[in-house]
Amino acid sequence: MNRRMVLNTLGHIAIALAGLMALPCVVSVIYGELKILWCFLIAIGIALILGLTLKFTSKPGNKIIYAKEGFVIVTFAWIIMSVIGALPFFLSGEIPDYIDALFEMVSGFTTTGASIIPDVESMSRGLLFWRSFSHWIGGMGVLVFVMALLPNMPDRSIHIMRAEMPGPEVDKLLPRARDTAKILYIIYIVMTAAEIILLLAGGMPLFDSLVHSFGTAGTGGFGIKSDSIGGYSPYLQWVIGIFMLLFGVNFNLYYLLLLGKFKSILRSTELWTYISIVLVSIAIITVNVYNMYDGFWETLRHSTFQVSTIISTTGYSTVDYDLWPGLSKAILLFLMIVGGCAGSTAGGIKVSRVVILIKSIIRELKRAIHPRSVNVVKLEGKKLDEQVVSGVTSYLAIYVASVILIFITLSFEPEHVFGVETNLSATLACFNNIGPGLDAVGPTLNYSGYNGFSTFLLTVAMLMGRLEIFPVILGLNPFLWKKR
Amino acid sequence: MNRRMVLNTLGHIAIALAGLMALPCVVSVIYGELKILWCFLIAIGIALILGLTLKFTSKPGNKIIYAKEGFVIVTFAWIIMSVIGALPFFLSGEIPDYIDALFEMVSGFTTTGASIIPDVESMSRGLLFWRSFSHWIGGMGVLVFVMALLPNMPDRSIHIMRAEMPGPEVDKLLPRARDTAKILYIIYIVMTAAEIILLLAGGMPLFDSLVHSFGTAGTGGFGIKSDSIGGYSPYLQWVIGIFMLLFGVNFNLYYLLLLGKFKSILRSTELWTYISIVLVSIAIITVNVYNMYDGFWETLRHSTFQVSTIISTTGYSTVDYDLWPGLSKAILLFLMIVGGCAGSTAGGIKVSRVVILIKSIIRELKRAIHPRSVNVVKLEGKKLDEQVVSGVTSYLAIYVASVILIFITLSFEPEHVFGVETNLSATLACFNNIGPGLDAVGPTLNYSGYNGFSTFLLTVAMLMGRLEIFPVILGLNPFLWKKR
Repeated sequence: MNRRMVLNTLGHIAIALAGLMALPCVVSVIYGELKILWCFLIAIGIALILGLTLKFTSKPGNKIIYAKEGFVIVTFAWIIMSVIGALPFFLSGEIPDYIDALFEMVSGFTTTGASIIPDVESMSRGLLFWRSFSHWIGGMGVLVFVMALLPNMPDRSIHIMRAEMPGPEVDKLLPRARDTAKILYIIYIVMTAAEIILLLAGGMPLFDSLVHSFGTAGTGGFGIKSDSIGGYSPYLQWVIGIFMLLFGVNFNLYYLLLLGKFKSILRSTELWTYISIVLVSIAIITVNVYNMYDGFWETLRHSTFQVSTIISTTGYSTVDYDLWPGLSKAILLFLMIVGGCAGSTAGGIKVSRVVILIKSIIRELKRAIHPRSVNVVKLEGKKLDEQVVSGVTSYLAIYVASVILIFITLSFEPEHVFGVETNLSATLACFNNIGPGLDAVGPTLNYSGYNGFSTFLLTVAMLMGRLEIFPVILGLNPFLWKKR
Repeated sequence: MNRRMVLNTLGHIAIALAGLMALPCVVSVIYGELKILWCFLIAIGIALILGLTLKFTSKPGNKIIYAKEGFVIVTFAWIIMSVIGALPFFLSGEIPDYIDALFEMVSGFTTTGASIIPDVESMSRGLLFWRSFSHWIGGMGVLVFVMALLPNMPDRSIHIMRAEMPGPEVDKLLPRARDTAKILYIIYIVMTAAEIILLLAGGMPLFDSLVHSFGTAGTGGFGIKSDSIGGYSPYLQWVIGIFMLLFGVNFNLYYLLLLGKFKSILRSTELWTYISIVLVSIAIITVNVYNMYDGFWETLRHSTFQVSTIISTTGYSTVDYDLWPGLSKAILLFLMIVGGCAGSTAGGIKVSRVVILIKSIIRELKRAIHPRSVNVVKLEGKKLDEQVVSGVTSYLAIYVASVILIFITLSFEPEHVFGVETNLSATLACFNNIGPGLDAVGPTLNYSGYNGFSTFLLTVAMLMGRLEIFPVILGLNPFLWKKR
């Protein structure tokens, strides 16, 4: 492994983190939270010392990066960001246990939005801002961000993007990975700004608008109210509900939109599948919960919002969907697993993988009848490489295995507190980066009931889900760290 | 498709069914249940008329069978057996609704053991016997049975065995499929007889011994007492517990045992994995439920029995495991999905598929680091064909898709009766042919609460699970029925 290059890149990440933490400092100053400001300054100091040390002690001889280095860089970048980023929560005393603070921070960066805080309304403004801003950073990817900024990143850095970006394949929009990263971030910033403006126009205060736009853009879900979005006006709920859906779409499509290639967008199988799943789910749930709300439009608003929040794996809520009938809950569980489109900020298995899985099932059925026939799996009009298809089916296998393993380990938690429904939905909600689950971790409750071991386990689950399992398993494998 | 050959074989099946129903007739005569005898005679009459009509109107010109014909024969054979076999339950009035009777019969043949009957102890002896005997018939396969008997089956009948026998690959033990079928049935009969003798030796009445041995051998689980096996002596519980495990082992290993090839048996990865999963599960559950029972041996007995009943997908119980802590229930849910070994009478995904899945995950991890390397998946020392590996991963995909689809459709059942845990465990328990699930379909309860639509859905789920999905989807596809 090219160790120097790995350590040097991690140094850049730590420095970037210090820069990003300057924003919550500004918020703390504005709201006069001096103690919180100090906590952030200490964390910034630690990040800077680590970053500069790594940067200047590890000057890489060559800048070549392979898949191996990509996995190690991404995994450790996320660990460093989380471990240092969690310090202000812990130092301020607002989350007295460091394991809990780490859970909250990883939940932020992985855009999960699962919270350990029993009373979010009593938190300081600086920490609330940092929590939500971490969604925005983590949504598009920390390394993609650094790549967009740094001029001297190696050309092979597509391996880093592959390891950090969700989905079965990462399209290079432009020949150079760095230009692709820039385009993605520009789209991301413009869409976030649009949401902020629409929320302000609806009368939401500036702080609330920023926080909720960051949470929506990253499909994270950290809020600042105990009832999440439930207390805001119907207009604001519609804005957030629709933006969550938009951020669950593959960003490549927005790039095509910029280029005016409307036909290519309309031909996207993944987009149509995503839209179909959303519409069918909304229709069924609207009928199913009709008698619980006041008339058609209110029911439609709540069902749309909840479908949108779950399929985009955001985690905001306008109502307590844990009280919904079994059918609606079953559909939400299904949406949790599917998740958003590849190349979006959403979690889950991803719609494109589901499409590929269904096509490979059909192929297998054909093969059962005509064992010698050759069948090709196509997506978006292109023939898929056999390695991509087998990669997707293996991903399902490793996904199922990971979920079962985490679920069983989580069940070691004492029984009298949490049952099967709670533990299973907690596993799915963390692994798929949604946030709230069902029953004792439902939308009106939080994860503070779990003990230290379970909290740490769910923290690992969030990281594995966000980085799509492979980087975490491979990046933490000391065998890979050996010098070449 | 070779229609005449298909119809002719189905005729043979109907005639065989008539013959098999002679046994419960004998039981009805012994216990003086004249009304039940008449019900069976009517069903036998219908089976004979159908069978003879099909046999003599469809004389096949050629006897060639391909995979296609295999799927259609197997699916319709199971449907004919279930539809006619359910008649005595319905005609006798002991199950007044025909859909319920069909559920009970399919539950029998598929060796599920899920019951719709609220009070099993009030049923007539003839019907109780038929219910349990259907486990024994369905366990090894109806068509395998017919093949073992009929001298003039085509040589290509391995396609029928493939479609009916569980597991990723069917080994031909002997060059001719018919001889393989015979050997398997001889082993099956000898092991069943051994269990009957051991139960009689422990003081269990003859009728009870027969019924429970049939239920164990087919890994079915229909009992004749409200508390399943709970009321029998510890010795009898141990016998049944251990035999359930034995019937979950690949029958090929018993054939190797007959041949004295001990080394080959000890080299079996699937066997060792099966044993390891069983031992680890028993150990964890014993510790977990230790304070619920009276001392180590009683705890060990109950944990062994319940692990054995679930991994072998039988469904007997000695205690109400729905009252166990979350950890133990999580492990049971995991065992439900894994199931027994390929080539056994058990359901589930099968241990060998789990082994292949884990190996293909490891291969995919290696591939992520060295994209151009060639890695082969091996099992039992042999290189696995890529089509087998991709068949197994696709099987997982179609398995997950089917479970999710059935779970969501089942959730259309009115909410106030059943929650997420009930519906999910009912889906898994039927699809994996176990029988009892958790919560409202737990081991002390039954499926009578579901409405007609849900009952029928679960009936289809049991069939799909027993025949491993493909035959049901393909066999019911009218496109396949076309004449060549």
